[in-house]
Formats: sequence, C-alpha cells, structure tokens
Amino acid sequence: MNNLKPLQERINTFLATYITQFSSTKLQQAMSYSLLAGGKRIRPILVYLTGQMFDCSLAKLDEAAAAIEMIHTYSLIHDDLPAMDNDNLRRGKPTCHIKYGHAEAILAGDALQSLAFSLLSESQHLNNQVKIDMISELANASGLTGMCLGQSLDLQAEHQAITLEHLQKIHNYKTGVLIKSAVRLGAFASGDISKPYYPLLDSYAQAIGLAFQIQDDILDVIGEQAIMGKPKGSDIIHEKCTYPALLGLQTAIDMTKQLYDQAIDSLNQIPYNSQPLQDLAGFIINRNS
Amino acid sequence: MNNLKPLQERINTFLATYITQFSSTKLQQAMSYSLLAGGKRIRPILVYLTGQMFDCSLAKLDEAAAAIEMIHTYSLIHDDLPAMDNDNLRRGKPTCHIKYGHAEAILAGDALQSLAFSLLSESQHLNNQVKIDMISELANASGLTGMCLGQSLDLQAEHQAITLEHLQKIHNYKTGVLIKSAVRLGAFASGDISKPYYPLLDSYAQAIGLAFQIQDDILDVIGEQAIMGKPKGSDIIHEKCTYPALLGLQTAIDMTKQLYDQAIDSLNQIPYNSQPLQDLAGFIINRNS
Repeated sequence: MNNLKPLQERINTFLATYITQFSSTKLQQAMSYSLLAGGKRIRPILVYLTGQMFDCSLAKLDEAAAAIEMIHTYSLIHDDLPAMDNDNLRRGKPTCHIKYGHAEAILAGDALQSLAFSLLSESQHLNNQVKIDMISELANASGLTGMCLGQSLDLQAEHQAITLEHLQKIHNYKTGVLIKSAVRLGAFASGDISKPYYPLLDSYAQAIGLAFQIQDDILDVIGEQAIMGKPKGSDIIHEKCTYPALLGLQTAIDMTKQLYDQAIDSLNQIPYNSQPLQDLAGFIINRNS
Repeated sequence: MNNLKPLQERINTFLATYITQFSSTKLQQAMSYSLLAGGKRIRPILVYLTGQMFDCSLAKLDEAAAAIEMIHTYSLIHDDLPAMDNDNLRRGKPTCHIKYGHAEAILAGDALQSLAFSLLSESQHLNNQVKIDMISELANASGLTGMCLGQSLDLQAEHQAITLEHLQKIHNYKTGVLIKSAVRLGAFASGDISKPYYPLLDSYAQAIGLAFQIQDDILDVIGEQAIMGKPKGSDIIHEKCTYPALLGLQTAIDMTKQLYDQAIDSLNQIPYNSQPLQDLAGFIINRNS
C-alpha cells in the first residue's frame, strides 16, 4: 500500500524529533532504539486516516499517533522479554533486551508508557477535554482492561486447548482494544463532527483488529522470515493456540475475508470519504509481513 | 507517628475498593497483591497532608493519593524482578514475581502504571486543568526524566565507585522526583491558593526525599530485618554505593538531621499550619523500617 509511506515517514520523523529532545542516556538510547526501529506503524496510520476522514489536520493528530505507537512499542519490548515470549529478533533487529540487557529493556518499556501520557497531557494542539478523553481511552486500552489483560490471558493459555471463543477474547484484549483506540483517538481529535459515527468506527476497528491478528497467525505458518523480520513458527514453539491451528488454514483465510467485508460495510455507512481506511483494511489482510 | 494511621487506613480502603471493582483475573490478583500489601504509604500521606494544609478536602485528594501509590507499587514490582534487584521479600511477603511468576509481575507493574492514569483522567472530583497538571507531573516523574532514569543510572552505577554528587543525582531521580510529585499533587488539588508556595513545597520535598533515601541506606546497615520486612545488607550484596559507604555512618546520620532542618525551615515560611508535614519529616528520619 504505497500511500501509507508519507504517513509512515511523518510519524517516524515526529517520533525521532520528540525522543531526541531528551538527554542521551542509556535509557533514552534503549527507548529510541525500539521506538525508531521501523515497523508498519498501523496504529498511528489509523489515527491519521480516521482524523483525516473528518477533515482534522495532521498536526492535530501527531501527538495521539505518537502516543499510541509508544504504548505499542513498550508492549513489544516487554512481550519480547525472556519471561514472556523470549524473542531475540524484532523488526529484523535484535530485541531491546538483547541489545541493552533485561533490566534496561524493562525500564525502556516502562518509560515509553509514561512518555505517551506526558506527550498527550502536554499537547500544544488539543484542548483539555480531548486530552482527558484520549488519556482515559489509552490508559484503559493499555492496562487491566486491555492489552496487559490480553497478554496475561495469552500466557495462561499456552500449552492448553482453548475454544475459538476464548481465543477471540484473548486477541480482542491483546490487540483489538488498542486498534480500536487508534481509530477513536483519530475521531476524538476531530471533535464533535465524528461523534455520531463512533459505533461504526468501533465496528470497523473491531473487524480489522481481529483480521490483523488472524493474518499474524497465518503468516507465522506460511510467511517468510526474511520479509517478516522475525522467526516464523514461534507460535508452534510456544504451543500457542492460533486460528489456523483451531480452524484450519483455509478457514482462517476465509475468516479474514469476511472480516474485511464487515469493515468495509461499516465504513460505507459513514458519509465521508473512507477510501483510505478501506485501503488500509485491504492492506491488513493482504500483507505478507 | 500515630497520626499517620487514619490516612494510611483511608488510602488502603480507597485502593482496595478501587481495585476490587475489576473482574478477578490472575492479572488483577497480582496487582491487588502488591498494591494492598501495606507499606508506609508515605507518598499518599504527602498528598493528603499537603492538600489539608491548604484546606483541601480529603475526598478531592484520594485519587491523586491512589495514583501515586500505584506508580510507586509498579516500580517496586519491577525493581524486585531478577533482572533488576532480584529481591524475594517485600513488605514482609514474597515479592510479586515469586508469588505470581515473572511474566505476570511484569504485566502487573505495567497495568498499575496505566491504572494510575485511568484513575486521574476519570476523577469525579477534579477539573480538567487539574487532571492534566497531575497527569503531566506524574508521567514526567515516573519515566525518562524521573524514576525510570534513576533506576537505570542506579543499575549502571553498581560495582562502581561514584562521587557523592553522582549518588545524589541518582537518588534524586530514583526517589526524590516522585516524593516531590506527591507534594505537588496535593498542592494542585488545592487550587490557586497553594501556587505562591510551590518553590517552598519543592524545597521541603527535596529535603525529605533525600533524607528518606539516606535513612534507607542507613537502615540497610543497622536496621533489623524483622522490622523492615526485607533482608538487610542487600546494598552490600549488590555492591551499591550508599551514603554510609561514601560518608561514614555518623556523617550520613548527621546529613539526615541537616536535611530535616532544611525541610522545617521551608515549611516555616508557609503561612498555614504545617505541623503535620513537619511531623512527617521527623518520622522519615527517625523511622526504623
């Protein structure tokens, strides 16, 4: 999806400018290393595209886009730790704890979480109510009612047979809730104009969030390590329950297509130009890394 | 210091009520375990006492008091991990990772950090500007410009000879900045009435924060394990540079007394009843655990 490039470059530049304003300590270096390691930047792009659909300026969206990427990056750093998924490679580079040591990686994740809330609270572009709405949304999506809960449930489910329903619950908390937050943050920044469409936006986000996870599982089976930047087959090694394992590969692929249709259907009910968000849904189910 | 009891009970009740509103998952249990493990509750008490000095109601201070204790507890959980200080005992009980496993302890810390920001952003008692000020203050004090930086510098200084100046810098980031935040949060909740006294409050907080750390180091040499609830001598085991090691025990003790005088001197310039904050300064340098 070529038209993602400018937004990827925008968020990369914003993040690099923001993080380099802090003194270069070992902690700041570990944070920068992971934050600026590239990646698809799906969450910031969702913030930008949702906001743009409602005519919100990109400048008003930068901080929310950066904050959600900081939360995502902190979760990757912690998930990669030996106590969790024990991954040595991320985005084609050694993971944070391999490069900087375990202690520094824990701290880098911790401090990236704080930095997301510093950034939002100190925004020069958002009014106080929007800041509060964003902080509440992001904090809830990150913690005990979101991403951390999902990761905890996921770890408990390792080496166990679970139902499709439970797998969907895990993935909803683990990745779905934060994807939904990305879309909501874009809507919040746009002001009242977006309010009537919150349920449709949630429905779109829910569908692409789940499709994203299923595609992740599919790629872990059929993807190429060189393209993905991380070893494939890690789900099997961890005896993780996945959609292809539970449903068979073809049914899992079919499911991503149904979710794509659901996402497009939701967008079609919003009377603004949703083509870029539609393209993103297509990108998510067709990506090969 | 007997008059701390009612405030300790108040924050314990508030924290217990708040955390038990969430479904009882393994993650929620790990968070509750550490959050409700007791402890001196110095930071919440500082929030309460500072606010009360300016006639702020306790109800308006509960959320800030709870949020800062969540940040403090998350930092304890992560600091105790094998990759960091590797402590098995905290507040007389097995540490979070001993009880719930390393992965769950990392997640419990992460989710406690998020919860602090959820709580502040969803406060029923504070206006939006105060919420934003508190979130910004707490996020900055926790992360790359505060506590995490202090812990990172502290780990880098292990097994190394460092100067008194560098030791003070480490401790300022590691504990001083969050102690200062506690006082500031109490002042923020009190509104404009407290504004002229921010510099004096900072000076008080700076003095007791440093005194608190020096007393910690002193207790690690002369304290009794049964009272402290954690093994003594752990600084020596980790080859950590401490005030008694750098200055000698008597000079370190004298330094806490000078810092006490500095704290009292700052409070005496504030035309409100600062007796409870003065008593707290006394408690900090006279405590035996």
